Amino acid sequence: MNPINVSADDLLSFTQACLAAVGVPPEDARVTAENLVFANLRGVDSHGVIRLKIYVDRVRAGGFRAGARPQVVQESVSTALLDAGHGLGQPAAQAAMQLAVRKASDSGLAVVSVRNSNHFGACAFYAMQALPKGMIGFAATNAGPTMAPAGGREARLGNNAMAVAIPAGSSPPVVLDMATGAVAWGKIFVAQQEKRSIPTTWALDKHGVPTSDPNAAAQQGLIQPFGGYKGYGLSLLIDLLTGVLSGGGFSTGVRTLYQQLESPALIAHTCAALRVEAFMPLTEFQQRVEAILALMHGCPPAPGADRIFVPGEIEHETEKARRAQGIPLNGQLVAELRVLAQDLKVTVPF
Amino acid sequence: MNPINVSADDLLSFTQACLAAVGVPPEDARVTAENLVFANLRGVDSHGVIRLKIYVDRVRAGGFRAGARPQVVQESVSTALLDAGHGLGQPAAQAAMQLAVRKASDSGLAVVSVRNSNHFGACAFYAMQALPKGMIGFAATNAGPTMAPAGGREARLGNNAMAVAIPAGSSPPVVLDMATGAVAWGKIFVAQQEKRSIPTTWALDKHGVPTSDPNAAAQQGLIQPFGGYKGYGLSLLIDLLTGVLSGGGFSTGVRTLYQQLESPALIAHTCAALRVEAFMPLTEFQQRVEAILALMHGCPPAPGADRIFVPGEIEHETEKARRAQGIPLNGQLVAELRVLAQDLKVTVPF
Repeated sequence: MNPINVSADDLLSFTQACLAAVGVPPEDARVTAENLVFANLRGVDSHGVIRLKIYVDRVRAGGFRAGARPQVVQESVSTALLDAGHGLGQPAAQAAMQLAVRKASDSGLAVVSVRNSNHFGACAFYAMQALPKGMIGFAATNAGPTMAPAGGREARLGNNAMAVAIPAGSSPPVVLDMATGAVAWGKIFVAQQEKRSIPTTWALDKHGVPTSDPNAAAQQGLIQPFGGYKGYGLSLLIDLLTGVLSGGGFSTGVRTLYQQLESPALIAHTCAALRVEAFMPLTEFQQRVEAILALMHGCPPAPGADRIFVPGEIEHETEKARRAQGIPLNGQLVAELRVLAQDLKVTVPF
Repeated sequence: MNPINVSADDLLSFTQACLAAVGVPPEDARVTAENLVFANLRGVDSHGVIRLKIYVDRVRAGGFRAGARPQVVQESVSTALLDAGHGLGQPAAQAAMQLAVRKASDSGLAVVSVRNSNHFGACAFYAMQALPKGMIGFAATNAGPTMAPAGGREARLGNNAMAVAIPAGSSPPVVLDMATGAVAWGKIFVAQQEKRSIPTTWALDKHGVPTSDPNAAAQQGLIQPFGGYKGYGLSLLIDLLTGVLSGGGFSTGVRTLYQQLESPALIAHTCAALRVEAFMPLTEFQQRVEAILALMHGCPPAPGADRIFVPGEIEHETEKARRAQGIPLNGQLVAELRVLAQDLKVTVPF
């Protein structure tokens, strides 16, 4: 099928309808759809509606337990531990983030960890929920093993990811959202769909050899950590602060999204919020953030570069453009979504 | 002079005596010396007593204000902001870490930021102070600008660094201590002293061109961020969470250690502590940490590797060896320390 542009509203209502069609409660379907379309809007297509079909498949198979409600297991002034009951990752992580924000309103800082959750999409979605409250937001997740420790050749760590969002006044917020792999796993799927080769620094094939073939990477291959042993260290750190700390799955105890669809993935997340006014008035902080961003933007470019970006800036500009012009979906994805819609008896608004 | 091995005790008492000789109060001289020798013990010689002479020079010139006491500027249940009054970085950061640990004992989690501080040495030293309390420790610092944003060619960010320490029961703790540059700046000085070339991924020369010459790097060169734009993002993030959040210096507002010795460096730190038992019994957590470490250690090595390490493991083994055999100091450093001792009328115990 041909690529098309779809409005965010149409993609949101369609995604929500597909999830509702397999029994996801309306509010959970809504936040999950918002998260996927958020990623598409910001140009992070690897975390967008390309994931809708597998989400539907996992709900049907039982790996995502539609309707599970996150329960508070343990709580202190500035911490909480939730159990997501193997429900969808998006509503569980949103509940964690909202609880962190509530606690940080009182104590200045809070962290909430969630175990027995599932794939939660783009981290920035949660971290950014702290911004309207004048807070710095943080969200991290572990993931099914796709990466070896530095020097290893078997998957023992997920492409674990984290995001931090920082309010910046009239400027777009600083939003650093990064996986600890050299590349988001979903980008390899996009390359597969678009039949493009990948840089050899992205992945290993199943023999542990670097490959430029996205199919070889996808067939029992491994993602390489970014920046060598430092990326490995950060990935292990995120697993310690999510899976290990929460009592959830970690390392090889976490399932990847595309295997054993009937089994909970045992993914864990950790969200945190820090109230800026525990340190200084928010407007003063925002001015200081704008000042440091101006210093980055004003740096003379190196030969070959013509502009300096700050984290989240490209995504912010992409979102503005896509809100105006629609979200481009490639032909293969459009075809997949149409088949899914037919199967679920959901109307396709695009 | 010939390289020699020095016992940690001798190096500690010597370092403390040199600092005391220029008017640093005994307790502050002690913690500063402990921090420098800690780095040497763990094999991080770039952050060890190679820094003693410049510390002494800065105390004498006034950039380090001997005797300044950190003051609490603002405080909430789980946060505090300190002003270090341009005193030495080590006592200021230790005060921040101890306050974070005290607050986290009550609320589960706390963060303490410090402005108007100075170079504080190895981050892990502070993060690890949370361990005996059954807490996860975090410490980060900004630094004088030596690194360009991704795509830039002027120094706008320090080789900002962070450490996280996680208790691991009978195993050595997990200690991830990493700068956001491809290399710690001090390692370039070590290479200079030892007349070795450096990898071209470490630094740019003053024209913005990658160089293998540590002298070219040291002469107005720049460190490269590790892992490209992700390392840049992490460096900016640390500056936001230390300098910007604390009301201290940030970006080009921070001075490097070796310039303008008479001026405060305006460095900022942020320390945090998380009480493990806010999530689960400590022993259970430690068993889970040991389980994930066993999964890393048990990973089959890739061709060319014969062992998998976890963060902090090499440093832990180095410390064991150096406690037994002494700390090796190269000839040039020994000569420098002897000249310094003569100048300060301090006895050299090695």
